[in-house]
Amino acid sequence: MFQCCMARTLLDPSVVIVDSFDRSKLRADTPGCDHRVHLNNAGSAPSPSVVTEAIIEHLRLEEAVGGYEAAQARTEQIATGRAGVARLVNADADDIAFMESSTVALHRILSTLPIRRGDRVLVAASEYGSTILPLLQLTRRLGVRLDIIPDGEDGSLDASSLDRLLDDDVRAVFAVQCPSHNGLVNDVTALGRRLRDLGSHAWYVVDACQSVGQVPVDVGEIGADFLYASGRKFLRGPRGTGFLYVAPRAMAGLDGFPTDVHGGEWTNSDSFQLADTAIRFENFERSYANFMGLFRAVDYLQETDQHGVFAAIQRNAEFLRCRIGATPGYQVLDRGAHRSGIVTFVHTRLTAADVVGALAAASVTASVVRPGINPVDLDGRSTVRLSPHAFNDESDLNLALRTLSELS
Amino acid sequence: MFQCCMARTLLDPSVVIVDSFDRSKLRADTPGCDHRVHLNNAGSAPSPSVVTEAIIEHLRLEEAVGGYEAAQARTEQIATGRAGVARLVNADADDIAFMESSTVALHRILSTLPIRRGDRVLVAASEYGSTILPLLQLTRRLGVRLDIIPDGEDGSLDASSLDRLLDDDVRAVFAVQCPSHNGLVNDVTALGRRLRDLGSHAWYVVDACQSVGQVPVDVGEIGADFLYASGRKFLRGPRGTGFLYVAPRAMAGLDGFPTDVHGGEWTNSDSFQLADTAIRFENFERSYANFMGLFRAVDYLQETDQHGVFAAIQRNAEFLRCRIGATPGYQVLDRGAHRSGIVTFVHTRLTAADVVGALAAASVTASVVRPGINPVDLDGRSTVRLSPHAFNDESDLNLALRTLSELS
Repeated sequence: MFQCCMARTLLDPSVVIVDSFDRSKLRADTPGCDHRVHLNNAGSAPSPSVVTEAIIEHLRLEEAVGGYEAAQARTEQIATGRAGVARLVNADADDIAFMESSTVALHRILSTLPIRRGDRVLVAASEYGSTILPLLQLTRRLGVRLDIIPDGEDGSLDASSLDRLLDDDVRAVFAVQCPSHNGLVNDVTALGRRLRDLGSHAWYVVDACQSVGQVPVDVGEIGADFLYASGRKFLRGPRGTGFLYVAPRAMAGLDGFPTDVHGGEWTNSDSFQLADTAIRFENFERSYANFMGLFRAVDYLQETDQHGVFAAIQRNAEFLRCRIGATPGYQVLDRGAHRSGIVTFVHTRLTAADVVGALAAASVTASVVRPGINPVDLDGRSTVRLSPHAFNDESDLNLALRTLSELS
Repeated sequence: MFQCCMARTLLDPSVVIVDSFDRSKLRADTPGCDHRVHLNNAGSAPSPSVVTEAIIEHLRLEEAVGGYEAAQARTEQIATGRAGVARLVNADADDIAFMESSTVALHRILSTLPIRRGDRVLVAASEYGSTILPLLQLTRRLGVRLDIIPDGEDGSLDASSLDRLLDDDVRAVFAVQCPSHNGLVNDVTALGRRLRDLGSHAWYVVDACQSVGQVPVDVGEIGADFLYASGRKFLRGPRGTGFLYVAPRAMAGLDGFPTDVHGGEWTNSDSFQLADTAIRFENFERSYANFMGLFRAVDYLQETDQHGVFAAIQRNAEFLRCRIGATPGYQVLDRGAHRSGIVTFVHTRLTAADVVGALAAASVTASVVRPGINPVDLDGRSTVRLSPHAFNDESDLNLALRTLSELS
């Protein structure tokens, strides 16, 4: 359960968020700030206007010269965009594949991993439902055994539990860095280190959907073989975009699954070759317009004070968490020693849908987390999720808090 | 090899395309007509402006209210859009799943089909490389046997060859309606009928990527268990869109592969439920903006004289085919008794890239088909592909023909 040492102080209405981070440019760049208080950035964040303009510019080009010809004309920008995405997670551009979503990335990984009957797969307890569902189907179809990596005392992933869970049958380990339904940050770096220390041969897959754009992500430090992320969340890119990092070790050691003529080449009647780089994981077809938007979103973050953005998200979330935790009628559910920009809570009497509805009526965008996202963690309950971004200012947060306090 | 009885007549410069189809509205609606002669509609066709405007309208809504909230606000339009896509192929809306591309659709089908070691899979000889590549990997990984359904005398799919190819080990049959690299139309209806007549238990998968928007497609008549299509080609929708039809028989008889929390529900620690409709094949995440564009493209076709569009495409292609076939230095490669809007040919001396380059210099958009698309059919040669649409008028075609004749 969430404990906040600052709650008493923060309850004092004279207390403000003290930081030197200048939100004014972020707000001026974000047309959505004029319409709503956006606190569903873990769902799909409003983009800075430069992102939307980049998409529209490409759509206009496609309209004029044709879809393939427009992509061809932007070859250089696409290479630069790939390098920008790579830089975001400290990878080489050759190790980055563009994905339509994190789900597509996960399916691509699952098509590649040599998981066979009798193998074991380990998954973080706070994993996202969309990762668990295909894995459950593998257990049903192939008799793969799915084991949960339990949380430690603080409620986040416990790397030390690998010592007893790992054996030679473990083919893959899946861990989510920032769960979607809880405001904790899992220490995926410690898990990666433990895997290496134990000499594991398991492939390490990290879900960074909710973490890119709000916490530093470094694939080398994490030691991930695969890491995938969404464009539309804290990164503030368009819907329908994401990316996949594939470590050189995975490229060299795994037989890829050729997606189409983009990532592989049908050479003669019964053979094919795979592309040398992570492009082998990409589909030929995608919305290039949306990827122009994604590249712009990545640049926008990197042109801003990136660590200032990360810190502002955390401070905004902690401010909400402390206040809500101290408001009668609410229970904050966030766990872990490290916290993300996601704040989850329940009202003791009202449903999550009621609370989110009341916030929406006050022009505050929040979201309901359904139990199916992680029925074990959520224990069958829907919860309310607020996920501020760096562009949210204190007046945004106070509007949300005032609305919540009126319900309590 | 292509033979055209009208070639002599058509070579006469006084001969024109005689049809009553009014292209003026199509051209006025298509900004691309002002910029280029678009003859790569089998690649990615220029959209009517209403499609681009629908995308932009949704992007603006997302910018204001947030990505999830914008989709929520368009629930009704999405249902109407699904019904429109269904109508296009004479299906029920519940049997339609939205796809990011045909490739994503194919992978979804492959994840669902119970193809096991020792099974056989039949594939049309004129199949697209992107279909063959994952199937070749299945043969390598699972020891699945891949057999080609040979072409008949006219160079198109020969349904009667099923009589000797089919046995109880055949788990799936893949057929492309309009191949990407040849101007033939395969009789997928005859193949479907033959499968039923022979009492086959194989799942029948039809690739309609190049056929929707240029020939009538009726899933019931074809008897397909799965049929998938792209939005960006003859349908003139946005890149990054497509759809999948799943027959009720396939929904009932196959254990789905849960893609994510959209198509399935993680119910408790070790079980899940699948959605009742074809939604179980969809990913939660997609570019809703692009799908707003796809819906508009489907409506646009259905509001136009649809059969007039189909006929105009065929006439435009046949006009090009006859003229090119009669031009010294060119060899038309299109086969089959029925022809599509795709015209393929080689220059006896110049490379396909040279020819396409010369066309591009004259503002005519064409494409090179690389041998990897189907190395068997293409015999290692790159070919030139022209794929006119109904909006192309005679002046468009004549510019292309003039440029080609100057090279010969």
